Amino acid sequence: MRFLAAAREETGLPVITEVMTPEQVPLVTVYADILQIGARNMQNYALLHAVGEAQRPVLLKRGMMSTVEELLMAAEYILSHGNDRVILCERGIRTFEKYTRNTLDISAVPLLKQLSHLPVVVDPSHGTGKWELVGAVSKAAVAAGADGLLIEVHPHPSRALSDGIQSLKPEAFAQLMTELRAVAHAVGREL
Amino acid sequence: MRFLAAAREETGLPVITEVMTPEQVPLVTVYADILQIGARNMQNYALLHAVGEAQRPVLLKRGMMSTVEELLMAAEYILSHGNDRVILCERGIRTFEKYTRNTLDISAVPLLKQLSHLPVVVDPSHGTGKWELVGAVSKAAVAAGADGLLIEVHPHPSRALSDGIQSLKPEAFAQLMTELRAVAHAVGREL
Amino acid sequence: MRFLAAAREETGLPVITEVMTPEQVPLVTVYADILQIGARNMQNYALLHAVGEAQRPVLLKRGMMSTVEELLMAAEYILSHGNDRVILCERGIRTFEKYTRNTLDISAVPLLKQLSHLPVVVDPSHGTGKWELVGAVSKAAVAAGADGLLIEVHPHPSRALSDGIQSLKPEAFAQLMTELRAVAHAVGREL
Amino acid sequence: MRFLAAAREETGLPVITEVMTPEQVPLVTVYADILQIGARNMQNYALLHAVGEAQRPVLLKRGMMSTVEELLMAAEYILSHGNDRVILCERGIRTFEKYTRNTLDISAVPLLKQLSHLPVVVDPSHGTGKWELVGAVSKAAVAAGADGLLIEVHPHPSRALSDGIQSLKPEAFAQLMTELRAVAHAVGREL
Repeated sequence: MRFLAAAREETGLPVITEVMTPEQVPLVTVYADILQIGARNMQNYALLHAVGEAQRPVLLKRGMMSTVEELLMAAEYILSHGNDRVILCERGIRTFEKYTRNTLDISAVPLLKQLSHLPVVVDPSHGTGKWELVGAVSKAAVAAGADGLLIEVHPHPSRALSDGIQSLKPEAFAQLMTELRAVAHAVGREL
Repeated sequence: MRFLAAAREETGLPVITEVMTPEQVPLVTVYADILQIGARNMQNYALLHAVGEAQRPVLLKRGMMSTVEELLMAAEYILSHGNDRVILCERGIRTFEKYTRNTLDISAVPLLKQLSHLPVVVDPSHGTGKWELVGAVSKAAVAAGADGLLIEVHPHPSRALSDGIQSLKPEAFAQLMTELRAVAHAVGREL
Repeated sequence: MRFLAAAREETGLPVITEVMTPEQVPLVTVYADILQIGARNMQNYALLHAVGEAQRPVLLKRGMMSTVEELLMAAEYILSHGNDRVILCERGIRTFEKYTRNTLDISAVPLLKQLSHLPVVVDPSHGTGKWELVGAVSKAAVAAGADGLLIEVHPHPSRALSDGIQSLKPEAFAQLMTELRAVAHAVGREL
Repeated sequence: MRFLAAAREETGLPVITEVMTPEQVPLVTVYADILQIGARNMQNYALLHAVGEAQRPVLLKRGMMSTVEELLMAAEYILSHGNDRVILCERGIRTFEKYTRNTLDISAVPLLKQLSHLPVVVDPSHGTGKWELVGAVSKAAVAAGADGLLIEVHPHPSRALSDGIQSLKPEAFAQLMTELRAVAHAVGREL
């Protein structure tokens, strides 16, 4: 936690981090700008209740086995406890396809925006599990109307403790940002 | 068949149409510019063999429960019979999600382009089953690198014999084409 | 075909074999006692039409991507062309589970028997893809009410041209038959 | 909790009930004989940790979109915290099939018994979601080698607060128990 706070101070970047249990919520609220609910906890109602009473925005990841309807119901549950700053995140669902870690459900982006007023972000790193696909899928997400992206970046992906195979190097990320700016502009958005 | 030929003559547009059995291939080859293999026939090897010997390009739709690897093997089968003009088509796979008719696998677009040299097109009409989602998913497909789109259009969707619910009206289609031109340009392609 | 006919003559066993195209139906009808439609052809309507006019019972395998409703509709299509001797076969559906080749849908057995009057058989060899699981799943199928089983047997599974990994040796098959007799008896059926 | 304890005292039946958060574990341990982890919490590691330190057996339900491998890893996690009395429960996975609420993975029963030494039980009520299918699937589970069953029973299913549609009436349950005794005997087990 102190490292995150120090990183925020040094870089000026806001911090988002995951909460796993209701008891962690007060402490994480002090140090993080956004609380993240992971895919495996999307229907952990005790946790949803706790972040529903927190004074921080919540990024709610769609469970890998959850329908769009269930994602919206989990979001409603947070809202019903008083926190109306919920961000929905599509991060891929489990299917029979084996090349990719998950199957990113691109239709969920316009669907969630039609069915709710909440912002929708996409996680192409977990959604594909392969850094070679992150660029194309990121551009697709922006073109489909996503309000943001969660992209994993690591200076030395092969030495990462986890998820190295789906992480971009900083130079590739910088190049992608340039390309994303053009796509965003083409659909009437600005980064 | 004669109607298709007449439509081609009157409009100057090329014609693509589905073949369902090996015996239909010679006749359809006379009238159509591209032969289409439907999703249900992706592993109908007698049919793949027949179009592999035809003198027309083949559009091969991914089966709704087929892996990317199986799609590539079906394409190989056509190529091995002498026809190297195969177009791959992602049209959505069957998952547990219920809002959409299928789940369009957007990652398949860059994946197929990395694993093969064949052109890749996307069918957002069948891929979503809802005309309200066709626009956003079409833009996503172009941004992800698709070489073409199959979009259903009908002057009176509510009176269509089939697939009306996923068809765009001509005005909406014209508007979408303008938007797609901007996205294509943003990713370095031109329509 | 001549080998199948010779095998039938020598052993006295009836023969079931797959038809892949409409043109094969007349010839196979001469030599086989039952025509089999494979999972990949469950929605090949030209083929369903042809066996619907044949003078042989038809074993219709559920597509690996097909719902119970679609299986029943394919059966209806055969029946509507005049052949009312259709046998339904559950052989596993494609899911995210990776240990087994397919996921055998055991509930489909009582469901198909409640929704139709047709006999229902189960293929535990394709349904699991592993000979170690064939015995337990065969017993489950009989207990659930299946009217028959399709079990792959090979004297030397490791030398089989295909499907060796899911084939039982003759001794294991004989032992299983004894066990199945007890289960059938327990649910009021006799082999 | 007091009601459960009273019911246990009056009937002499042991009690199994679900724990949803780590904090509930100490209290539930006092009143229940077995702690249940629901499908949605199969990968809730804080909860798995807590029951791993409890002095009660744990029934671990497979997540509806979890592989057999993931179920075994979740069980390992409980074992690694000192509790070696873990019961595995197959309760159906999510697939494209729509007639049933879930698709009960019958192969998981022999597979789990081959891959581990833990007892395996089956929940045909959640696994099918339809009381009409519970009998046949229960018999299948016993024939496949299950060590136990979780069957929902309600005196007035149509008035049940939840899951009425998958609940048996007491008379149907008594009849099923007689039938299950015969199947168990046929596979060399006794109830």
